[in-house]
Amino acid sequence: MFLKNQWYVAGWSHELDDQRMLARTLVGEPVLIFRSEAGSPVALQDRCCHRGAPLSLGRREGDCVRCLYHGLRFDAQGRCVEIPGQPVVPPKAFVRAFPVVERARWIWIWMGDAARADPDSIPDTHWLDDPAWRGLPGYMHYDVDHLSIADNLCDFNHLPYVHPTTLGGSEQYAQERPLVERLADGVRVTRWLSDIETPPFVRKVVSMPPRVDRWNIYSFTLPGLFVMDSGSAPVGQGARAGNRAGAACFRSCQALTPETATSTHYFFSQLHDFALDQPEVTRAIHSIIEQAFKEDERMIGGQQRTLALDPSFEMLPLAMDAALSHYRRVYAESLAAEQAAG
Amino acid sequence: MFLKNQWYVAGWSHELDDQRMLARTLVGEPVLIFRSEAGSPVALQDRCCHRGAPLSLGRREGDCVRCLYHGLRFDAQGRCVEIPGQPVVPPKAFVRAFPVVERARWIWIWMGDAARADPDSIPDTHWLDDPAWRGLPGYMHYDVDHLSIADNLCDFNHLPYVHPTTLGGSEQYAQERPLVERLADGVRVTRWLSDIETPPFVRKVVSMPPRVDRWNIYSFTLPGLFVMDSGSAPVGQGARAGNRAGAACFRSCQALTPETATSTHYFFSQLHDFALDQPEVTRAIHSIIEQAFKEDERMIGGQQRTLALDPSFEMLPLAMDAALSHYRRVYAESLAAEQAAG
Amino acid sequence: MFLKNQWYVAGWSHELDDQRMLARTLVGEPVLIFRSEAGSPVALQDRCCHRGAPLSLGRREGDCVRCLYHGLRFDAQGRCVEIPGQPVVPPKAFVRAFPVVERARWIWIWMGDAARADPDSIPDTHWLDDPAWRGLPGYMHYDVDHLSIADNLCDFNHLPYVHPTTLGGSEQYAQERPLVERLADGVRVTRWLSDIETPPFVRKVVSMPPRVDRWNIYSFTLPGLFVMDSGSAPVGQGARAGNRAGAACFRSCQALTPETATSTHYFFSQLHDFALDQPEVTRAIHSIIEQAFKEDERMIGGQQRTLALDPSFEMLPLAMDAALSHYRRVYAESLAAEQAAG
Repeated sequence: MFLKNQWYVAGWSHELDDQRMLARTLVGEPVLIFRSEAGSPVALQDRCCHRGAPLSLGRREGDCVRCLYHGLRFDAQGRCVEIPGQPVVPPKAFVRAFPVVERARWIWIWMGDAARADPDSIPDTHWLDDPAWRGLPGYMHYDVDHLSIADNLCDFNHLPYVHPTTLGGSEQYAQERPLVERLADGVRVTRWLSDIETPPFVRKVVSMPPRVDRWNIYSFTLPGLFVMDSGSAPVGQGARAGNRAGAACFRSCQALTPETATSTHYFFSQLHDFALDQPEVTRAIHSIIEQAFKEDERMIGGQQRTLALDPSFEMLPLAMDAALSHYRRVYAESLAAEQAAG
Repeated sequence: MFLKNQWYVAGWSHELDDQRMLARTLVGEPVLIFRSEAGSPVALQDRCCHRGAPLSLGRREGDCVRCLYHGLRFDAQGRCVEIPGQPVVPPKAFVRAFPVVERARWIWIWMGDAARADPDSIPDTHWLDDPAWRGLPGYMHYDVDHLSIADNLCDFNHLPYVHPTTLGGSEQYAQERPLVERLADGVRVTRWLSDIETPPFVRKVVSMPPRVDRWNIYSFTLPGLFVMDSGSAPVGQGARAGNRAGAACFRSCQALTPETATSTHYFFSQLHDFALDQPEVTRAIHSIIEQAFKEDERMIGGQQRTLALDPSFEMLPLAMDAALSHYRRVYAESLAAEQAAG
Repeated sequence: MFLKNQWYVAGWSHELDDQRMLARTLVGEPVLIFRSEAGSPVALQDRCCHRGAPLSLGRREGDCVRCLYHGLRFDAQGRCVEIPGQPVVPPKAFVRAFPVVERARWIWIWMGDAARADPDSIPDTHWLDDPAWRGLPGYMHYDVDHLSIADNLCDFNHLPYVHPTTLGGSEQYAQERPLVERLADGVRVTRWLSDIETPPFVRKVVSMPPRVDRWNIYSFTLPGLFVMDSGSAPVGQGARAGNRAGAACFRSCQALTPETATSTHYFFSQLHDFALDQPEVTRAIHSIIEQAFKEDERMIGGQQRTLALDPSFEMLPLAMDAALSHYRRVYAESLAAEQAAG
């Protein structure tokens, strides 16, 4: 039960290098992605229409793929163009082709009605490929449903508790309520902290005084996209009003793509606009982010085990849940609408 | 579907040493146990009332525990005493606290209605902590339901077959019917064997003639407690009438605490009243018991695999099943009564 | 849901050597097989009638087996002949004995109504034990249902695609339609290829020109038996008309025995009639066959994962599916008939 009429991140551009056949299950469907000889991504259902063998165990033949169970050959539009030993290809012999667009190092795929796939509606994550920013491509596989991770991203109150030595820092952070704006397709969260302890990961990669003005401004929108402007600036210089001189600024692009009802693909990159010619800084930031995401995974995994023991447990809504509650409502309503529409 | 209004063994005293936060699932519920600064055990539901994260991934703050997902703090009675960024704590913000008592190296917990928890009803297992006896703390985790292990403990006919080189010995043992007394809350089994081969494990740890008078006298009572007086004495001196001169005597304390419907915690100690100043004897006895319990586990595990293949299989009641049949009946009736009472 | 009134292959003769107690689950039932002191195979239900312990964890006592949970002893007909401590054995105390026949190195077992077990109906696989042929005993355990493997064996179109460097060779193979004869209990498939590339595995073990006349003639019959005459002969000498001079001839005996609904035992041997005194050739052929079967397993496993994602997927029947479609129909009708008959 997933939203289908959405652009999902299916992978990183580099995952299609070297003629690779990328097999990935997306919103419950097996998908094969590869780059055509002209360089465009192609996405086909990864299930031969004959007897269900994965085309990803097959072989590329130009822009076609031959299933290596019984030899059926499919073109880049998913049409079967050859059946060994059978001169006529029946009209039902095809696999589904998905609209797919490569943009700023991400491969976006549309899992729903192809006629509604509008590349102009792909969200802006240009920082991933902007020479003014640096970041490394990240990926994690989570054995939990995507909404449990969405909860985590909607509520930064967890930062000082889950990530005390990486992203978090002082628990003062959790005392201040962010501004939560309800969007039609998600939430926008703005948090400004004045004169707060410099976050640990910032101290590790850039010279910064022990206290800063700090901000996290992000949107989290359907079907699971997180885009954040964050940073730390010298106290009192007016970062909030726009003066980012001497600040360490970040852009974070993160995408949750459900794999199955109980597992999720997590694509992410934390981009920075300083030390552009110091790859060791880029690597250090990426490494800290990976460490922090493992901290999340440990907590969310523990939460899943606890919830599994008693499906009747009801969560207790608190003030800090404003963003996640709204996102869950938007998700549920969108899903109901999509299913009602057939 | 477990009995709740019962004292269960939750752990060994030493498992709470060094400020440890012991996380253990008991009768299907996640429980966190720790020792207060004053030294008393505290048992809380190991599931934050907010969004279900395990408190055992949190941190001790004096006698309080802070959930390290979003920072809620709970006192030793389970009341939430702080919510970051929210001045008022709602009345529903609490986790359940369980009555818990430490006695003779075991931590006992009451999983039902706290008003009915009477520490005076905790069974006597004082030998675990009696200077006249020696034994080591044992624990096994079983991937079977508790009643399959209860069956095993109710019927010592299996001793010479499952444990020929450890606890068992001559198959003459299985030819003699024990006295089985039906109790309101379980069974009491008395078995005296005159002039029988000395059990292998006794021969290994104490000097004893090749044949002895041997006894096993135990109760097995709700919710899964086994307490046994056993031993071997020189033949014909009247051990049965009370003369235990030159005998090797044992007390065995064993407790089955269900973890889930298909797994069980098993706490045990085999205490001896001889060689009190020879720790190598204590270790040797413990080691043989562990070996024997692995013998049981292999057989019970095989039984489970066989039963899983055909849930319609009906067991064949035999004379030797008197004790286990009664215990299963008592358990089922007690469970039905408890559930009927709400 | 398996056919029961059938002879199934339960194992290889050598698996009963050295007084071994072979425990194997066959069509969902636990079975214990051993060789009597007189040398005949005995097959008993591997589940004590008392409390379900596996007899295979017990011990042989002559032609009897003693359960080593509580000591019940069963004779080779499955009758309980002793219950420790209980003088009278109740009439319900028995385990089922299955008709079992050893023939040409295979142990055949009848899992249904014993009165209908006719050893004369055991299929002919004498090549397994014929001095004019050589082969090694093969076994694989498959984590898929037996019909998915049956599909594979019914349709050799997959040879050049799944096995290009082992059994397959030129894709010309898949262009030619075989003759498919529908049998009451399965299919007979005949494929002759004239002047085709010599199959890779033949080239590896025997001196043969680069092109040959090649044949695969096999039956696949209930409940899952594959017997094949195959070979390669010099082009144009009339192999099809019977002249096999200079040919490399093979007999393949393969049996699928369901273990559970989702797993299958696979017994096989590829026998050759040349190089009879060269065990290295026999080993090489066996090794290539094992490699090829792993190629099948990889594809069938991939197919299973894909199908599991969407149980509503409908396969697309093609001309090449004639044999497998007929076999599946025969299987389904036989199963329905057997179940209707009780």
